[in-house]
Amino acid sequence: MTAKLYCFGESGNAYKAALTMELAGYDWQPLYVDFFNGEARSPEYRALNEMGEAPVFVEGDLTLTQSSVIQLHIAEKTGKFLADDRNEMLRWMFWDAQKGTGQQGGLRFLMNFLPEDKRPQEAIKWLKGRVLTALATLEAHLAGRDWIVGDAPSIADFACCGYLYYPEPFGFERNDFPNISHWLDGIAALPGWKHPYDLMPGNPSDRA
Amino acid sequence: MTAKLYCFGESGNAYKAALTMELAGYDWQPLYVDFFNGEARSPEYRALNEMGEAPVFVEGDLTLTQSSVIQLHIAEKTGKFLADDRNEMLRWMFWDAQKGTGQQGGLRFLMNFLPEDKRPQEAIKWLKGRVLTALATLEAHLAGRDWIVGDAPSIADFACCGYLYYPEPFGFERNDFPNISHWLDGIAALPGWKHPYDLMPGNPSDRA
Repeated sequence: MTAKLYCFGESGNAYKAALTMELAGYDWQPLYVDFFNGEARSPEYRALNEMGEAPVFVEGDLTLTQSSVIQLHIAEKTGKFLADDRNEMLRWMFWDAQKGTGQQGGLRFLMNFLPEDKRPQEAIKWLKGRVLTALATLEAHLAGRDWIVGDAPSIADFACCGYLYYPEPFGFERNDFPNISHWLDGIAALPGWKHPYDLMPGNPSDRA
Repeated sequence: MTAKLYCFGESGNAYKAALTMELAGYDWQPLYVDFFNGEARSPEYRALNEMGEAPVFVEGDLTLTQSSVIQLHIAEKTGKFLADDRNEMLRWMFWDAQKGTGQQGGLRFLMNFLPEDKRPQEAIKWLKGRVLTALATLEAHLAGRDWIVGDAPSIADFACCGYLYYPEPFGFERNDFPNISHWLDGIAALPGWKHPYDLMPGNPSDRA
């Protein structure tokens, strides 16, 4: 049975789930969510996910939301990308939800997808400081490491990288974070890796 | 063996772990982290938790960080407060990390613990909007429910309530959220429940 992922290219959270499925060789297909025209706020979408967010994973009778929960399901079902140390893997996934991509996604939205005259500059400045502080934590952790947990890629890697391949600026410059840059190259070298805009439908040029 | 929790009263994230242990009847004791004098940013503390955050849980050779990971450990070890539907429980814990307490904690800090002349008012306004939008999602979910998942309290409840008993204002008014208020009353009625300032050392009056 082909799993369906409600997603859109600009969503780094959807990318985490899509990338995990793609690298695990999972049978899946994307369903486009027209986020920028408000689809995720519609009553129909809320009936699918009361949180009003992408991604949503549907496989037969099973509906899952929250990218990390979808990642766990794929990893447990396929036996791939589960770190031996579950606590350490989950620790980085929860850190990521709060301090990593959880903040990066909001900042990228404010800096790129809001109309220029509506961007809250002081909030952007504050949030950018938080994002860079958190990235420094990840940079320090990745010193001398190829992967976030242990010696192999896990869903913790595919969570924390969720927004870091996008071209839209949000304060993250690879040159400032050499360990993160090395780690991102390692993920991108995995067989089957795709950039978010190549893996999911929808990207900013559609609205240009 | 008595577990130790590095914590401080003002930390709603520490409260999640402390409350879970207290309600589960776990053998634990708090160790005060002098967060407001920078202890969590010290090299010694970073050696304990590279993320520079509270809480940290230590039990013999096992050190855990991230409140949700600690909660999972306690719940699995005691068999208490694990919802039957693990995916649904984790879904709300990940939602909470990003949209719930993950945002509330930062907002409460900006509005109460920063010196008045250093509070970024536009960032506060933006973040308050985000916090209230997320609380509306929780309010809608709790309509007709006593607990976040199924028919019994779980660690998802003790995660999502982490900042909601504090007296310091951050835009959350119980009268505006009757379902959340009912749910908080239910948690507070569980045998052994304590307010964060009664469960952990340190509170704002220490610095008054």
